[in-house]
Amino acid sequence: MEKVKVIQMGIGTVGQAATRSLVGKKGLDIVGALDMDKERVGKDLGEVAGLGKKLGIIVTDDADSLFSKTYADVVIHITCTYLHEAYPQIIKPIQQGMNVISATEALGNPYVSDPGLAARLEKLCKKHGVTVLGSGLSPGFTSDYLILALTAACSELRSIRYKRLSDVSAYLGGTVGRHFGLGLSPEEFKKGVEEGEIIGHIGFVEGVQTIADRLGWQLDEIKRGMEPVHDEKGQFVSTRTIVRGIKDGEVKIELDLEAFIDPKMETMDRIIIDGVPPIDMVIKPVIPSVPATANALVNAIPHVINAEPGLMTPGDLPLVFALENDLRLFLK
Amino acid sequence: MEKVKVIQMGIGTVGQAATRSLVGKKGLDIVGALDMDKERVGKDLGEVAGLGKKLGIIVTDDADSLFSKTYADVVIHITCTYLHEAYPQIIKPIQQGMNVISATEALGNPYVSDPGLAARLEKLCKKHGVTVLGSGLSPGFTSDYLILALTAACSELRSIRYKRLSDVSAYLGGTVGRHFGLGLSPEEFKKGVEEGEIIGHIGFVEGVQTIADRLGWQLDEIKRGMEPVHDEKGQFVSTRTIVRGIKDGEVKIELDLEAFIDPKMETMDRIIIDGVPPIDMVIKPVIPSVPATANALVNAIPHVINAEPGLMTPGDLPLVFALENDLRLFLK
Repeated sequence: MEKVKVIQMGIGTVGQAATRSLVGKKGLDIVGALDMDKERVGKDLGEVAGLGKKLGIIVTDDADSLFSKTYADVVIHITCTYLHEAYPQIIKPIQQGMNVISATEALGNPYVSDPGLAARLEKLCKKHGVTVLGSGLSPGFTSDYLILALTAACSELRSIRYKRLSDVSAYLGGTVGRHFGLGLSPEEFKKGVEEGEIIGHIGFVEGVQTIADRLGWQLDEIKRGMEPVHDEKGQFVSTRTIVRGIKDGEVKIELDLEAFIDPKMETMDRIIIDGVPPIDMVIKPVIPSVPATANALVNAIPHVINAEPGLMTPGDLPLVFALENDLRLFLK
Repeated sequence: MEKVKVIQMGIGTVGQAATRSLVGKKGLDIVGALDMDKERVGKDLGEVAGLGKKLGIIVTDDADSLFSKTYADVVIHITCTYLHEAYPQIIKPIQQGMNVISATEALGNPYVSDPGLAARLEKLCKKHGVTVLGSGLSPGFTSDYLILALTAACSELRSIRYKRLSDVSAYLGGTVGRHFGLGLSPEEFKKGVEEGEIIGHIGFVEGVQTIADRLGWQLDEIKRGMEPVHDEKGQFVSTRTIVRGIKDGEVKIELDLEAFIDPKMETMDRIIIDGVPPIDMVIKPVIPSVPATANALVNAIPHVINAEPGLMTPGDLPLVFALENDLRLFLK
């Protein structure tokens, strides 16, 4: 059987981690790499990803040329957060019959944020016989897939809570830092929210919907809150993003991220399931987002190739595991 | 679509928990119950399971009559530990075209303990178009399925360790208590092992193989150890069952259960994955074995109906989740 061919779209921090994950896999070839950053274009992908060796793949910024000349079974797409940003980028590979696994948070459950565009995308997938999965760490792992996996031991579920405490000092000054409004005063934060610069964590609304879909919980509403925490002196402590799925006035699902700037603070992922039996799971320290996002995307490759054409959420996945073995063994 | 029909085989402590789990499910009917205990035969299943209401299903001890007269899509089998015990019990429903989900620990990966009998069973499954899955808490959840699910965020796996600290005071005097040699002096324990009465936890060898199969790790050997821990005064503290999967002299997978008698001791399930990123997961208190075993079996129902005919291990499952929704929605 031929090796599985992969094109990488977006070679930023997470994309570079995805390259490192991909090169360790058996039964897989990277056949193309696309990025818009002038610093990366024209360089070898191995060099850009810090591998210390060349991969013989030159990073290009010419999407039309790449997708018309090079076929891949799967495109790993790591460029943006929202569906309207991702859509024009991924229609090209879809039209060429390529499956897409994307870190675009809105693709974690695309019908939530833009049902119209999601329906168009679904139709396009079916027309071209391909599958599009949105995955990563959150959505994709801790805030949906792992929660659902834990409920396998439960019955009579009453509620689900997920709390992530994460130090994001490393993102100060960068895009993620701006999205979280890190270090800002209450006034600066308020202004940033009004201007649409500060958005907090995107993906929890999608996660709540994915869990509710699988458990058959008809939620009355999904409420999203995003606010800074300041100490009594007005010093920035953290940014919290809390999303709650509510039914009959009760919080059935709560996903809560506290992103703070303090490398000495304890970090963790915690999942609390109120059911029979109850489960209280803690991962300490927190699962780091960059490698986990990259691996969740890469480890899904055979399962997305196997899937029926259409849109897929992390709740639709089979049991995903690290691809230590030749991934062609897992193709149907 | 008709409701899914289930027969229960074995209505002991875990079987009764399975009844309680089954009655809460939508799209499912219990159509038969079998048990050999004279205290249970002739009584209503609801009464035996402590439901406080009748289910209209009378527990019978006549397997031939039950399986020839009553069809079920799935038989939930909770009666024994070893494959040679389970085999003569489950061939009857298999020959009638019924799928089997079993708590028999050896069925968690039946080729490990008895490849000859496993091959005969597999052939029988294929002939009659049915699937047999061995599942439960361990094998079935903490010591294989959940470990694999966690590796979805990882690459470059080096080793996997699972440690369960569990208070088993409740089992003192019963079958499980005898299997663990609870409370015995060093001499009594030694004698019990020689006589085959003390066996420790069965299912870890199967779990190690299931993990190794999925990760493509060709183990050189699987070593099993089982011994009591006594304090300096010779007082019984606990029984440890440790199984290690070894490759090139290195422990790649270690599953370790310490079963002690002390309701005040801290209990936990811990999974440590050495990979990129590393993951250190703790569930505290320990997931209780009775409801978790029952739920893991019941929640697998639609996935076993969907599966190709043959033997199935917990590593072959799709993402299993609590069946809060009508389970017919998950049938292909």
